[in-house]
Amino acid sequence: MGGPVNRRVILKARPIGIPRLSDFGEERAEIPELGDGQVLLRNIYLSLDPAIRGWMSPQEDSYQPPIPIDEVMRGVTVARVEKTNNADFQVGDHVMGLNGWEQWSVSEGRGFINRIPSEMGLPMSNFLSVLGTTGMTAYFGLLDVGKPVSGETVLVSAAAGAVGSLVGQIAKNQGCRAVGIAGGKEKCKRLIDFYGFDAAIDYKAPGDLEEKISANCPNGIDIYFDNVGGDMLDAALNCLSEGARVVMCGAIATYNDDQRRLGPSNLWQLLVHNARLEGFIVSKYIGRFSEGLEKMGQWLGSGQIKHREEIVVGLENAPGAFLKLFDGSNNGKLIIDLSGA
Amino acid sequence: MGGPVNRRVILKARPIGIPRLSDFGEERAEIPELGDGQVLLRNIYLSLDPAIRGWMSPQEDSYQPPIPIDEVMRGVTVARVEKTNNADFQVGDHVMGLNGWEQWSVSEGRGFINRIPSEMGLPMSNFLSVLGTTGMTAYFGLLDVGKPVSGETVLVSAAAGAVGSLVGQIAKNQGCRAVGIAGGKEKCKRLIDFYGFDAAIDYKAPGDLEEKISANCPNGIDIYFDNVGGDMLDAALNCLSEGARVVMCGAIATYNDDQRRLGPSNLWQLLVHNARLEGFIVSKYIGRFSEGLEKMGQWLGSGQIKHREEIVVGLENAPGAFLKLFDGSNNGKLIIDLSGA
Repeated sequence: MGGPVNRRVILKARPIGIPRLSDFGEERAEIPELGDGQVLLRNIYLSLDPAIRGWMSPQEDSYQPPIPIDEVMRGVTVARVEKTNNADFQVGDHVMGLNGWEQWSVSEGRGFINRIPSEMGLPMSNFLSVLGTTGMTAYFGLLDVGKPVSGETVLVSAAAGAVGSLVGQIAKNQGCRAVGIAGGKEKCKRLIDFYGFDAAIDYKAPGDLEEKISANCPNGIDIYFDNVGGDMLDAALNCLSEGARVVMCGAIATYNDDQRRLGPSNLWQLLVHNARLEGFIVSKYIGRFSEGLEKMGQWLGSGQIKHREEIVVGLENAPGAFLKLFDGSNNGKLIIDLSGA
Repeated sequence: MGGPVNRRVILKARPIGIPRLSDFGEERAEIPELGDGQVLLRNIYLSLDPAIRGWMSPQEDSYQPPIPIDEVMRGVTVARVEKTNNADFQVGDHVMGLNGWEQWSVSEGRGFINRIPSEMGLPMSNFLSVLGTTGMTAYFGLLDVGKPVSGETVLVSAAAGAVGSLVGQIAKNQGCRAVGIAGGKEKCKRLIDFYGFDAAIDYKAPGDLEEKISANCPNGIDIYFDNVGGDMLDAALNCLSEGARVVMCGAIATYNDDQRRLGPSNLWQLLVHNARLEGFIVSKYIGRFSEGLEKMGQWLGSGQIKHREEIVVGLENAPGAFLKLFDGSNNGKLIIDLSGA
């Protein structure tokens, strides 16, 4: 048939520990004919998220099956509908959904795909950051799972990251005290000066993390929004207040572990403080995204939410950009711009 | 002044691992004069519970301070008020509260002490078992923390134990499927024949525990009432259904650990299944005990709750009886009868 060729990034090898560039490959594929109910999407932006690391592992205990070797890398994109065999989508619609690291994706138009409301007048890339799964993770994770009450203390790990920085700001919008944990002076300064956190804890600075948390949360932690897991979770568990909630959003500290994962030593503290630890995956909330989009859009408009995007141009740069997530060198939500491809 | 002498069991040494008889001592003490607001209690029954092991350890991360060396062992008793400087209590009242392994206790009459309703016409020992903290732990832990819905599957560890056997029966009373884990054929038979569980899993029998759980919970676990912690929690985490609740009631598997406790490897499953793990201490519910007493009393009357008490006579036998909790050789809720002392 001819037509455009689909450049795509594939998984060449399962990473051992932190991924390397050699774990990725690039290929060119035909774009298949559309079957019944399918739509052809031209991907415009690709979101790079820590969770993708989990899908690169062989384990079966994930909420998504592993990406097969030599198959296209999985990721959330913003895309334009170019062809449609599905009455729910028109050519020219913009959608956000779970697709691939590729120029063209074929979608069934079901499950994890949302039409982007055109009336909001915001940049398309925002639908992968503050108005995408990142923003919805922060919004529903904090509000629906954590259930903050004005005056409470909310501690956030990976607080300078895409999700964490939003969690802190949403906490402030709810009248809470927001305390962030980040690595390095620069990030900690940004937490306070740019995102408006009440306090920032530099986990790379000398000193005991638990003592730092305790000093910055003198009344204990009411909500710990955990993006990290590992030792940081253990330290936070030792500082919980009565009835505390731990929102378990991610575990980037353990994504690269190949050993049997060992959980926190201090779970006992949940019992001592009548506290709970609750796991959370944003896909559960797809049906309520419009509610989150509206509220986050309002806060964005009123300046009550600030955010940063680091947009890297070109599909070929996706693997290298992805690695930044694991050394913390990205400056905001990492997005690949595929529009010029 | 003279008066009666107070025989008491004291903590001689902090146990290393499983407690030994040599960790306990006995002494005779004077009964002090009562101060303002105090009551003098003659202990009738003493409850022996796994949680006491936690109070024997030096760690500060417990919900009760450690029992000091050479001080009286702590425990819940049923007692009669013999003298009172407190207008809330009359001589002859029967109470249940946190006192000591001793014949006489002096209490402030505050906090963890409840007057026993005389109109229920049930044996006093029941107020340390099915109508005591044991029963209230099962009642509020399952109903208030676990929130069972008819048709759900409730898995209980240490199911032949004092708390676990009640949890299974309350689950059945709520229309749930009750699956119990216990050690040995005899206990498993008792779960089904006496307590009415739907299925029993013998963790001492050959075979993989996770596979056994999976086979007995074909639709997954909706509520795991965890009395044990450790590897059993890990196995259960791998069998959770969507939106599952883990009620973390005790961690007898780790009470005797002197190593740094390592938590469950599979906490990730909470995230995968939007599930939560919630800690729980019964003392939080003291204000609602009357509600639990009434309902449990009704079930007891109608035969919808069966229970067993193993009553050991004599304070001097308390240390030896306590050790049974750790090899599983007790047959029902362990209670020491102090009335003849």
